Amino acid sequence: AANNLLAALLDNHIYQGNALGIDPKRVLWRRVVDMNDRQLRNIIGGLGKPTDGVIRPDGFDITVASEVMAVFCLAKDLADLKTRLGNMLVAYTFDNQPVFAKDLNAQGAMAALLKDAVKPNLVQTIEGSPAFVHGGPFANIAHGCNSVLATRLAQHLGDYAVTEAGFGADLGAEKFCDIKSRLAGLRPDCAVVVATVRALKYNGGVDKADLGAENVAAVERGLPNLLKHIANLKNVFGLPVVVAINRFVSDSDAELAAVQAACRNAGAEVSLAEVWAKGGEGGEDLARKVVAAIDGGENQFAFAYDENDSIRDKIHAVATKIYGASGVEYSAEAAAEIANLERLGLDKLPVCMAKTQYSLSDNAKLLGRPEGFTIHVRGITVSAGAGFIVVLCGNMMRMPGLPKSPAANRIDVDENGVISGLF
Amino acid sequence: AANNLLAALLDNHIYQGNALGIDPKRVLWRRVVDMNDRQLRNIIGGLGKPTDGVIRPDGFDITVASEVMAVFCLAKDLADLKTRLGNMLVAYTFDNQPVFAKDLNAQGAMAALLKDAVKPNLVQTIEGSPAFVHGGPFANIAHGCNSVLATRLAQHLGDYAVTEAGFGADLGAEKFCDIKSRLAGLRPDCAVVVATVRALKYNGGVDKADLGAENVAAVERGLPNLLKHIANLKNVFGLPVVVAINRFVSDSDAELAAVQAACRNAGAEVSLAEVWAKGGEGGEDLARKVVAAIDGGENQFAFAYDENDSIRDKIHAVATKIYGASGVEYSAEAAAEIANLERLGLDKLPVCMAKTQYSLSDNAKLLGRPEGFTIHVRGITVSAGAGFIVVLCGNMMRMPGLPKSPAANRIDVDENGVISGLF
Amino acid sequence: AANNLLAALLDNHIYQGNALGIDPKRVLWRRVVDMNDRQLRNIIGGLGKPTDGVIRPDGFDITVASEVMAVFCLAKDLADLKTRLGNMLVAYTFDNQPVFAKDLNAQGAMAALLKDAVKPNLVQTIEGSPAFVHGGPFANIAHGCNSVLATRLAQHLGDYAVTEAGFGADLGAEKFCDIKSRLAGLRPDCAVVVATVRALKYNGGVDKADLGAENVAAVERGLPNLLKHIANLKNVFGLPVVVAINRFVSDSDAELAAVQAACRNAGAEVSLAEVWAKGGEGGEDLARKVVAAIDGGENQFAFAYDENDSIRDKIHAVATKIYGASGVEYSAEAAAEIANLERLGLDKLPVCMAKTQYSLSDNAKLLGRPEGFTIHVRGITVSAGAGFIVVLCGNMMRMPGLPKSPAANRIDVDENGVISGLF
Amino acid sequence: AANNLLAALLDNHIYQGNALGIDPKRVLWRRVVDMNDRQLRNIIGGLGKPTDGVIRPDGFDITVASEVMAVFCLAKDLADLKTRLGNMLVAYTFDNQPVFAKDLNAQGAMAALLKDAVKPNLVQTIEGSPAFVHGGPFANIAHGCNSVLATRLAQHLGDYAVTEAGFGADLGAEKFCDIKSRLAGLRPDCAVVVATVRALKYNGGVDKADLGAENVAAVERGLPNLLKHIANLKNVFGLPVVVAINRFVSDSDAELAAVQAACRNAGAEVSLAEVWAKGGEGGEDLARKVVAAIDGGENQFAFAYDENDSIRDKIHAVATKIYGASGVEYSAEAAAEIANLERLGLDKLPVCMAKTQYSLSDNAKLLGRPEGFTIHVRGITVSAGAGFIVVLCGNMMRMPGLPKSPAANRIDVDENGVISGLF
Repeated sequence: AANNLLAALLDNHIYQGNALGIDPKRVLWRRVVDMNDRQLRNIIGGLGKPTDGVIRPDGFDITVASEVMAVFCLAKDLADLKTRLGNMLVAYTFDNQPVFAKDLNAQGAMAALLKDAVKPNLVQTIEGSPAFVHGGPFANIAHGCNSVLATRLAQHLGDYAVTEAGFGADLGAEKFCDIKSRLAGLRPDCAVVVATVRALKYNGGVDKADLGAENVAAVERGLPNLLKHIANLKNVFGLPVVVAINRFVSDSDAELAAVQAACRNAGAEVSLAEVWAKGGEGGEDLARKVVAAIDGGENQFAFAYDENDSIRDKIHAVATKIYGASGVEYSAEAAAEIANLERLGLDKLPVCMAKTQYSLSDNAKLLGRPEGFTIHVRGITVSAGAGFIVVLCGNMMRMPGLPKSPAANRIDVDENGVISGLF
Repeated sequence: AANNLLAALLDNHIYQGNALGIDPKRVLWRRVVDMNDRQLRNIIGGLGKPTDGVIRPDGFDITVASEVMAVFCLAKDLADLKTRLGNMLVAYTFDNQPVFAKDLNAQGAMAALLKDAVKPNLVQTIEGSPAFVHGGPFANIAHGCNSVLATRLAQHLGDYAVTEAGFGADLGAEKFCDIKSRLAGLRPDCAVVVATVRALKYNGGVDKADLGAENVAAVERGLPNLLKHIANLKNVFGLPVVVAINRFVSDSDAELAAVQAACRNAGAEVSLAEVWAKGGEGGEDLARKVVAAIDGGENQFAFAYDENDSIRDKIHAVATKIYGASGVEYSAEAAAEIANLERLGLDKLPVCMAKTQYSLSDNAKLLGRPEGFTIHVRGITVSAGAGFIVVLCGNMMRMPGLPKSPAANRIDVDENGVISGLF
Repeated sequence: AANNLLAALLDNHIYQGNALGIDPKRVLWRRVVDMNDRQLRNIIGGLGKPTDGVIRPDGFDITVASEVMAVFCLAKDLADLKTRLGNMLVAYTFDNQPVFAKDLNAQGAMAALLKDAVKPNLVQTIEGSPAFVHGGPFANIAHGCNSVLATRLAQHLGDYAVTEAGFGADLGAEKFCDIKSRLAGLRPDCAVVVATVRALKYNGGVDKADLGAENVAAVERGLPNLLKHIANLKNVFGLPVVVAINRFVSDSDAELAAVQAACRNAGAEVSLAEVWAKGGEGGEDLARKVVAAIDGGENQFAFAYDENDSIRDKIHAVATKIYGASGVEYSAEAAAEIANLERLGLDKLPVCMAKTQYSLSDNAKLLGRPEGFTIHVRGITVSAGAGFIVVLCGNMMRMPGLPKSPAANRIDVDENGVISGLF
Repeated sequence: AANNLLAALLDNHIYQGNALGIDPKRVLWRRVVDMNDRQLRNIIGGLGKPTDGVIRPDGFDITVASEVMAVFCLAKDLADLKTRLGNMLVAYTFDNQPVFAKDLNAQGAMAALLKDAVKPNLVQTIEGSPAFVHGGPFANIAHGCNSVLATRLAQHLGDYAVTEAGFGADLGAEKFCDIKSRLAGLRPDCAVVVATVRALKYNGGVDKADLGAENVAAVERGLPNLLKHIANLKNVFGLPVVVAINRFVSDSDAELAAVQAACRNAGAEVSLAEVWAKGGEGGEDLARKVVAAIDGGENQFAFAYDENDSIRDKIHAVATKIYGASGVEYSAEAAAEIANLERLGLDKLPVCMAKTQYSLSDNAKLLGRPEGFTIHVRGITVSAGAGFIVVLCGNMMRMPGLPKSPAANRIDVDENGVISGLF
């Protein structure tokens, strides 16, 4: 609602005389809807009579793709929320000047709509442990972590605060460190890398259908992928690392041993997590090792780059240090937008890389620990309110579509209100 | 959400091969959003790449204008809800055949989304009396009453069930009787007409700015309007009538006396309601008179027309009997749609008149008790799931726009979460 | 080309800063193309990048429907052509002010493009008689006569100038008199009504398939139609009338005699024209009678209305005097546009009625000499350059479409350049 | 007209049931108009009622950019014209199959429209020499030479046929040899390279404003550009070369001498052409040298590549042999279209490079004789009727726009038909 309120205010501004001189063709702010609806990806709105608005291209994203979600997750308090909402870049004028949400005086009403939503909501696990589940920004075009408020509250209320970051450690951990920790002033003490034998075999070249069969050789071929993630966390971000092997019933002892040995050689503690089978008890060893790592280690936490570096330097740092790329190429559009952000003084922000989670590279089929590859930057956009620059490496879908046979066609509810067809 | 799920399923059907042969230019079902947003009244969706849907004209209404809202308010139970949702007319094929929501197998998932919403929600008045507030369909393009389930529950739980119907008695009471009561099998026992001295003076030709000054002559000039409403309820619908004069501090005794005398002459009981000033006590007299009317009278309840009459006959009946018109004129579009509904066998439904609430006629400036006027039917649409034919007499706005200075620009929230600018 | 140059200048004006404040949604001027192409009737142009123009609704008409064609046919000379081109109404500003072609300084370049086209082109008949064929404006949305320049040149060069006016005498003759003659200062001396026995039988209720069979009764039933045209020309426009019966081989002597008798009774000279069979010789009798009518009569020529009357009065005059209607009804849109033209001072122009040519009424199925009918005015537009107000009575097609099996699919050309499939 | 007839037939086919299953979003064929009109570059057509066509994205190019123009110039006779018109690729089906103009049976009617236009038109020079001016395809997205029919007629009628090819020798001569000569079976005997001292100075780094001042050093810095063109023609295409120095009054003797010496060193004959000053006499020396080159030499004419090579090989050949590039890079879109053309079997055609004429590279600012650069292929399209693959190296404008102050605003015509403001 806050996202669409801003859109309506912006279009109303254009319609009511357009005092700011907003170019209807250069509105960046899109509407959102909570539905997989490809039909709304690209629309033209404002058709009909003169009183029916101003004709312009527009489109809808799915709700979680809104910058409001990212802003909301990075806001420290209500005042910061308003500031960030106001700083969102929403359009350009005919004279190529930026228009921010605050120029439309939208931040107050938006924050009022979000007043209750910013309060972290407490849930409990099956075993009754408290946990916060709060905020879900995309892990590609946004930073993919829960809200700063929830993390801070967890730090305040517990002895140790554990949080999760979306996708592989090249994406989730990198963004947690370089974006969320940087913007919120957090200092992580330890990184837990979750690994599975199955994923390592997949990275070792095994077909998905064959992942259940023992294949120690494939595990070993896949291990360089895991070792790269460990090295990134230790050497780039300066964190002690504990690898949690999320055990599957199909994992053989030989396979598990291979992983454990490799991790220890790489200087990382390793624990066999059996939470799925044994509940909290199955994670006790992991917890103990994490606590030990935190208590024993000296915090060497560092960022992968300085946010005051140029945009190209920041991208280059992530691509080479974290992904292991040999270089970066820019499309004409991306190069032009970098120049534009420099013109606007919006270049001194961390970069939020949007790339496939299936590979360390930007090619989902390049498994294991690829080297000598190039990262291709297709587009650049800024989330000036959230406080980062989005770097698009490939096509990112901000609005999914329904499949040939939508689940909704199988869902039903009977006379007693019992719903069927959800699974 | 249920409304937009149906829209997404429909567009997905077209995109995924269009087995039903739906003509993209003849989709009737529109999307909804909960925002005043004129920009979305008329759009073209499905632009972009071939994978981004099928280009077609579309538009958004405000959420309450959805037929889902009307269906929801008229459903007797979950099974009936599903049937009505399935019967909604959503498009035509290239061969001019109707497409219903059930042809897309959407009703189950839609009903599942509405499973909890159909349960009436109980609120209390300031004095602690229980009341149901449940459902809010438009009073012009829909029937403007709360849900059948809430009314039935109230009948079940209380001695007397009182319900409110939107707009003037020519609209609200007519639709309550001819649509809601007919479709739900209700039999009202008594009608309360709420009148104000100020409204009578307005109907007597007084400017809004001067309504506070005593003007008995104007009250008397406006009284024929009230008397027409009373006559409609007594003579057309066969109900005992109690007039509740909603007292304002500016009402003079002479004015009130004039109203009371006229009502009694017209055979209606009358009560001075002072609920605003005195709370429940201020309505005791009214309640007593309503109870007396119910207990004393014999129920002669009747409809204004037979639903099996032709569409033109039904419209004619409402226009002449209720509004006092001398006749009805149809635009070419309305005449064509009447023929179309007859072709489809969708003509044996009650009619839901969408006209101005400011006049008994379709001209907002024709005050008092106009005669000799013509009702102009501009358009006809069917809400086949809700179960009525909408008759458009004038332009009805299904999606409002924001004003020159939107309220949102004045709304703010401070650091402590206190919202300002709402009023 | 002149039409589209104006369109390009107008859109370029909006794109290049829009100094006049033209509302992109209220551009009246449409583009034209010389192709039957329904796809172009309604478009949205200016899509794409900011440098690709301003998004707005637009559309194409077929070339002959352009106001430029009507202007061209009514211009007295190059200076008058420029004045009329400059006076064409092309758009409204955001402030609801009219924008004329001269405000875009387009008339000079447009006239330059038309410089050679305004010169009447001389052709010859099969028998070698000289004739001008010059200009072809639509006979519904325009006045349907050839150019003023060609008529004046014919008057100058010949003893008698004969000209043709499109569609029935209720349309062609009315517009020739009330529009072309009025605007160009012409005074016709005699009217020739072309009649056929077949058309009279059709007006007498005979199916098209049966028009070849003798049916004197049907001819007589159809004659009131012809007599109404004769009466219009004699009594309204004050002209001597000669009826030319365009003879078909299927016409029987009894049928022809019936027509001749009726015409003579109505005070009109009548001649059997057999030009189709006998060439010029077949028209000699007609020519002699026309000359006699001109030489013998005193010219009483008058208009059907005063151009300074109100728009409604002018329409009423044509509808009642010429068509024989009992009255006129206006749609809400037409009424609004009449008020708008009065606001702009563009109401003192002759009216150009656009209605079916198949009936004296606006209903193509009302044959013969209907009475007691109403003319329904659906829309009003102004051709301010041409100098008339277009009154739309029904749907007028300004851009035809191709049929299911287009003629182009049958057209071919062989190696020697011989074209086949044209007929 | 032939171009737009095809467009109308295609849209009519979709509208009338779409028997071929054409995907409205994947129509390649665009309409044309003979006007600089940016507003029409990107449109959506077919809006309005169901009878107003099928909504789809569309656009207009300027007339000369139509593939019909290229087809027309490459056709050997009417039968070949029809074949080529029929082979034009106009759309894809929903099943991703190609649709050609012949699938719409459009080629016959299109050829009929072009029947007279294919006849070369003879003009004369100021001195009365005959010349054909016939056909003008774009020199970037098409091959930029006059019609094959005109060239063949010239060969037939004269002793020597001289023809002109658009833009620099890297574009014009390359396309004349690799496209026109290959497709028409022509064998050129000699190449004339037109050079100017001013252009050499510009390539030598002199500002446009200073080109009039003598600067022998700059001439020498620019000469490698000319020498590369000479080398291409001699070594790649196997043609004797005569350089025609198009003399300007500002050229100094020293500058001219420098050019002459360099050409002779490069093995090319050179002639000072003074046609501008002296008429035909000024070109006699050039003509004599060309005749001598033709008579004396042995024809070694060769193509720059084999048309049966892969698309990438053909592009590589032109880029490296002719432009002097070190390699070629492809955008994702270009790579995908190459794969698509291979799928369709449309890859065995010559390539028509669309790049800037200002540099041997694809960067207009890289003057002289650049080396070590990369050619960037942004897009690939096929002109399957004309018979070549268009390779887009940069943004090519197919529809120009009007400037801030259009020439039309200065053009006028007076009462006597005298046009002013053209220059």
